[in-house]
Amino acid sequence: MNFEIPPLEGEDLRQQVRRRWDSLTKPRGSLGRLETLVEQLACVTGDPLPRVSRKGMYVFCADHGVAGEGVSPYPAAVTAQMVKNFLRGGAAINVLCRQYGLEPRIVDAGVDAPPEPGVIDRKISRGTGNFVWEPAMRRDQAMEALECGAALAQEAKTHFDLCGIGEMGIGNTTAASALFCVFAGLVPELTAGRGAGLDEDGVRRKIDALERALRLHRPNPADPVGVLAAVGGFEIAMMAGFLIGAAQARLPVVVDGFIASSAALAARALSVNVLDYLFFSHRSAERAHARMLQTLNVQPILDLDLRLGEGTGAALAIGVLEAAVRLYHEMATFASAGVSDRA
Amino acid sequence: MNFEIPPLEGEDLRQQVRRRWDSLTKPRGSLGRLETLVEQLACVTGDPLPRVSRKGMYVFCADHGVAGEGVSPYPAAVTAQMVKNFLRGGAAINVLCRQYGLEPRIVDAGVDAPPEPGVIDRKISRGTGNFVWEPAMRRDQAMEALECGAALAQEAKTHFDLCGIGEMGIGNTTAASALFCVFAGLVPELTAGRGAGLDEDGVRRKIDALERALRLHRPNPADPVGVLAAVGGFEIAMMAGFLIGAAQARLPVVVDGFIASSAALAARALSVNVLDYLFFSHRSAERAHARMLQTLNVQPILDLDLRLGEGTGAALAIGVLEAAVRLYHEMATFASAGVSDRA
Repeated sequence: MNFEIPPLEGEDLRQQVRRRWDSLTKPRGSLGRLETLVEQLACVTGDPLPRVSRKGMYVFCADHGVAGEGVSPYPAAVTAQMVKNFLRGGAAINVLCRQYGLEPRIVDAGVDAPPEPGVIDRKISRGTGNFVWEPAMRRDQAMEALECGAALAQEAKTHFDLCGIGEMGIGNTTAASALFCVFAGLVPELTAGRGAGLDEDGVRRKIDALERALRLHRPNPADPVGVLAAVGGFEIAMMAGFLIGAAQARLPVVVDGFIASSAALAARALSVNVLDYLFFSHRSAERAHARMLQTLNVQPILDLDLRLGEGTGAALAIGVLEAAVRLYHEMATFASAGVSDRA
Repeated sequence: MNFEIPPLEGEDLRQQVRRRWDSLTKPRGSLGRLETLVEQLACVTGDPLPRVSRKGMYVFCADHGVAGEGVSPYPAAVTAQMVKNFLRGGAAINVLCRQYGLEPRIVDAGVDAPPEPGVIDRKISRGTGNFVWEPAMRRDQAMEALECGAALAQEAKTHFDLCGIGEMGIGNTTAASALFCVFAGLVPELTAGRGAGLDEDGVRRKIDALERALRLHRPNPADPVGVLAAVGGFEIAMMAGFLIGAAQARLPVVVDGFIASSAALAARALSVNVLDYLFFSHRSAERAHARMLQTLNVQPILDLDLRLGEGTGAALAIGVLEAAVRLYHEMATFASAGVSDRA
């Protein structure tokens, strides 16, 4: 797989976008973040008049052997049950997809159940190994997940102007915390949180599982594929591949919360320029997410105390991006409206 | 005018809403702010299944004598020009109203020009006096503006489930800063900002104008009508009246940025319980707005560095509120979806 991503250029495009914003009937710069979001969209797509008409939401689903350590308040069976819920349209992400006109794409990256009719079947295996005792996956499986993700992004580019990514997988905040430990050199106390609603004892168990896993594998952050194999997840590796493939295809992607951000962390370790192409949707209520966003040196669009995943934060942020693009396209100019500009 | 507003009750309603959220297929509390927003909507409307189908956006417009002090980089004529832009659909708020399905209502509270066909004509006078030299308005005009606002809110309740408020008025950040000084006991250095884009000299002129006005009028915060008459604005007083009338009618209102928040400050001085009924949309880039929101002890929904006004931040926040309400109504329950709840 080719991980190469050119640095995001486009100072000319940025200037073009700025000039258009400054011609519209509002004080210069007064739409704040909405203006810079459109600048970035223009740079990523190479289009000074970017559109976000066709929008997709990819939800990557997989199971995690580490769920056996009692690191989630929900049974592992919930992953497969939620996949059915996604396919029937009853989950939070379905409601938001309907509201914002996003086409949902449910990807089975490694759910511990037969693939459901209607999913995009990219199942690498039925759940990862419990990384407290063994590697989460083989190295070739990590590569396969990355490649599947990149191929999905290439295909997404032919259908969509913009995509969100989210995930579902009981136990996957533990894998995300493990990746954060390795890529940022942090101890588990700083990366573990309540996930789907652990109590203090549960967080203790999670930290303990993370400590054992890191002691066992001693993952080397300079070998990101090896790190994903040791303590990653199928959906996380596939999201990392998706982000790389999307940057290569110049498809803008909006990243959901803690787990999707951990995929961005892995993608950055594989190809540092990937970050320039991404939009970070929100700061999650998961305790370590604020620190993770700082580590990535990115500014999220929203901060609504969400901690659901599925792409829900990404969908809400896409609503904001769409507003920004509509303002940019539809507002009157000072000249057309006969409004006096500043002296 | 009756300023009485009962304290917002509804612990039962809040419990009902919580129980419904907890039955939906997601970890408890994982929709964070979206969940508490629906709780508040239920309490304000008295409806455990609140709807936000019919939505209005009231944009209150007026001119300000203090604009003569060079406190805005734009000429005062822009207020009337922007009213025309609103009526033709070319302004930022029009674009957002189209995106979010809001009906715009453009209110002429005191523009220094004849009322435009299509505005809601509640013109108190053609602009306020320059409060550096004279009161902004007479006391009876302040009362009239408050009453007009309250009556508009009563009428809005018959058309809409939810309304936003915003404003347009060259010079009105200066009036908002003056009100903030008086109601919070702050010096102008702490309440004045760049407004529509002042440079350092401009901010100096603004602070100077505020200091002279406060020395001249010595407004008494215990007499809010007198404060509005001395240093307020017609659109600000009318928004304050609207907020009070809306709370009395149990119509939820989403407050825009710095100037609309200053109307909430005045409304609170008139009737302390009003705050419980309001939704604060965003933290503006206007420097003193963060402090104003702290003074009000409220948490805004968004923080996007906006400083445009017109109701643009309120419109974006209404998009989030609508998402919250749709999730609350449309998500599957654990029982209906066959998803295992936590142990």
